[in-house]
Amino acid sequence: MKINGKSYRTIWLNDDGWSVEIIDQTRLPHEFVTARLTTIEEAAVAIKTMQVRGAPLIGATAAYGLCLALREDASDEAMDAAIDHLNAQRPTAVNLRWALGEMRKSVQNLPREERVAAAYARAAQLCDGDVETCRMIGVHGLKLIEDIAAKKAPGEPVNVLTHCNAGWIACVDWGTATSPVYQAHDKGIAVHVWVDETRPRNQGASLTAFELGSHGIPHTIIVDNAGGHLMQHGRVDLVIVGTDRVTATGDVCNKIGTYLKALAANDTGVPFYVALPHSTIDWTIEDGFSIPIEERSSDEVLKMPGRLPDGTIVTVEIAAPGSGAGNPAFDVTPARLVTGLITERGICEASREGLKSLYPENA
Amino acid sequence: MKINGKSYRTIWLNDDGWSVEIIDQTRLPHEFVTARLTTIEEAAVAIKTMQVRGAPLIGATAAYGLCLALREDASDEAMDAAIDHLNAQRPTAVNLRWALGEMRKSVQNLPREERVAAAYARAAQLCDGDVETCRMIGVHGLKLIEDIAAKKAPGEPVNVLTHCNAGWIACVDWGTATSPVYQAHDKGIAVHVWVDETRPRNQGASLTAFELGSHGIPHTIIVDNAGGHLMQHGRVDLVIVGTDRVTATGDVCNKIGTYLKALAANDTGVPFYVALPHSTIDWTIEDGFSIPIEERSSDEVLKMPGRLPDGTIVTVEIAAPGSGAGNPAFDVTPARLVTGLITERGICEASREGLKSLYPENA
Repeated sequence: MKINGKSYRTIWLNDDGWSVEIIDQTRLPHEFVTARLTTIEEAAVAIKTMQVRGAPLIGATAAYGLCLALREDASDEAMDAAIDHLNAQRPTAVNLRWALGEMRKSVQNLPREERVAAAYARAAQLCDGDVETCRMIGVHGLKLIEDIAAKKAPGEPVNVLTHCNAGWIACVDWGTATSPVYQAHDKGIAVHVWVDETRPRNQGASLTAFELGSHGIPHTIIVDNAGGHLMQHGRVDLVIVGTDRVTATGDVCNKIGTYLKALAANDTGVPFYVALPHSTIDWTIEDGFSIPIEERSSDEVLKMPGRLPDGTIVTVEIAAPGSGAGNPAFDVTPARLVTGLITERGICEASREGLKSLYPENA
Repeated sequence: MKINGKSYRTIWLNDDGWSVEIIDQTRLPHEFVTARLTTIEEAAVAIKTMQVRGAPLIGATAAYGLCLALREDASDEAMDAAIDHLNAQRPTAVNLRWALGEMRKSVQNLPREERVAAAYARAAQLCDGDVETCRMIGVHGLKLIEDIAAKKAPGEPVNVLTHCNAGWIACVDWGTATSPVYQAHDKGIAVHVWVDETRPRNQGASLTAFELGSHGIPHTIIVDNAGGHLMQHGRVDLVIVGTDRVTATGDVCNKIGTYLKALAANDTGVPFYVALPHSTIDWTIEDGFSIPIEERSSDEVLKMPGRLPDGTIVTVEIAAPGSGAGNPAFDVTPARLVTGLITERGICEASREGLKSLYPENA
C-alpha cells in the first residue's frame, strides 16, 4: 500500500539480488526507516525484536532468513540448525513454522549447489502468494462491508473496529483484517476505522493508525477500554481482527485483549470476524486453551517509547516505581464468540465444519 | 493509609485553620507533593485537572471549595454561584452534587456570619463520614476475601483484580474497592492484586500500584487487555471495582473498560463486585445508558507522561502523527453482569430490590 504516495511492500529483495530489505517497524510511527538483513542472525533479531511482526511477515522474514543462512552453508545440518533457530524466535507464531516447513520442502531434496537459488525463488513465491492471499481475503470481506453500507444513508461511513495491527504492514501487502477496508475505500465506499491502541506495544495507535493514515483511510484511535462502550452505543458496525493461530475447531489466538472485544461484540450483537490466511490454521490443535501463550518482558508494560516535542524518541517509565508487571502477549477467543472467519477462499463459520467446508483437503 | 511509613489522608485542613491541603495526584507516582488550596477557583481547578479524583475525594474537595468561597462572600447569591461553578467541573460525578447539596443544607438557613464556621464543620464531617463509610465497605467486603481464602491452601494468595483507582487515594482514606484488600492484608490474609493499568490516564499503573505498594500489598500491573485472559486461566478469584454512579436499578457507571471486565468475569464465572458509598447511588436514574458520558481530550490518548532515566517528567507523543483519537471516559456495566454491590451497609444484589433492602428510606 502507499506511504508518502509511494507503493511499498514490507519486505523485498535489494538490487544486489541477495540481501533483504524490511521496514523497521520498531521505528514506526515516529520514523520511517528500512533495515538491510544480510545474515540469518539479523533476520532472527528482526523477528525477535519485532522489527517485523504479524504472522505472514514473520513467515516471509524467516523464509528469507533461511536463504541468508544457506548462502553461508547449504548443508542439511546448517539448514536444520537455521530452521530451529528461526522457529525459536516467536514460539506462538504457527505461520513461522509453516513458512519454514515450505522452505525445507523446496530445498531439502536438491543438491547443495542448487539450494540457494531455489530458496530465494521459494521465498519470493511465498511473498507473492501472501499478497494474493491477502487480496482475496479483502475480496471476500468486502462483501460484509458492502452489505452494511447498503443499509446506511449514502456517504454514512461503515464503522469497523480492529485490534492490534493485522494490516498490510503485518503482511507483505493488503493486510488481513485491513484488506476489506482498503478494498472498500478504494471502491469509494465510506469507511471509518476505530483503531484499538493495543497495549502494551501500541501496535494499533502506532502501526494501524500509521498505515491507515498513509493510505488515506478515515480512522480514530481509541484506548483498548473504549470498544465495548462504542458497541453498546451502536457506533461499531463490524469488528475485524487478525489472528496468530486458529485451531481446527475455530478458536482464535490473537493479541491480548481480543477476547474482551469478542465478548462485547457478542453482548451487543455486533458481528465479530477474524481475517486469516490458511497458513494461520493449526489443524493439529483442537482446543485453543492448549496453545502456549508467550509471556513477554514487563518493561513493555512499565515503559513507553514516544516522541518529545523536539522530535527525539525516548522511553519513559509510566508506572509506580517498584511495581512489577505481568505481560501475557496473546489470548484465546473461543469459537462460540466468533461470527465468522474470512479466509482467502471465502467466509466460513468458526467451527470444524466451517473450516472443513473451505479446506476439505486438510480436515 | 501509609506513604513512606507515615499515615495520610488525601485532604486535610492546614494548621492555619482555613486553607486546605491535597495530595497533587497529577504528580503521582513520580513525585509525592501536596498542594495548598486557598480559593474556590483553586479547588475548581484541582477537580477539573484531576489533581484530586475519585468520587468521594471530588466531593470532599468541592465541600472545602465552598468553604473557601464563603470566606470571601457568604451571600446566597455567592453560594449559589459557587455551587454551580463547582458542579460544572466534572459533569458525570454524582457525588460532587451530593456533597454540595449537603453543604447547602447545612448553611443556607444560617445568618451570613455563621455560615463559614458551619461550612468548615460540615466539610470536616463529610470527610470523617467518608472515612467511616469506606472502613465499613471494607468490613463487608472482607468477608468475600475470607471466604475465598478459606478454600485455598494456607498462604496461597487471594487474587483480586481491580480497574482504575478506587483506592484510598480516590477517597479520604481506606478507599472503596481497595478497602476489603487493605483490611484482609492488615488481618494477615494473603492477598495479591492484579492492577489494570487503566488507559488513558493510567490511574491503575500509577495510583493504585503506588498506594498498594506504599502500604505493602503484593500486586502486579497488567495492561487493560490482559484481565480476560487471566480470568480464563483461573488466575483471578474476585473482581472488585469502584464506581462513579450507580443507578436505582443497579447499573454501574465507572471508568471506561469496566464493562469489558464485567463481561469476562461473567463469561468465566469470576465474581464481579462493585464497592460504593451510598452517596454514589443516583436514585433518580433507572437506566444506566441515560447517564451522560464525559468525552475527554484526545491528548490523553495520544500523549503519555512519564519519567526519563534522569528523573525528569516529560510528556511524549505515542501515536501515529496526524491521527485523531476518541476518549469516552466512562462506560456502563448493566446490572445483570454485576454479582453484587458492596456498600457501607452490607452486600446486596445489583437491582432495585437489592438496593431497597439496604436503603429502604430511599427506595
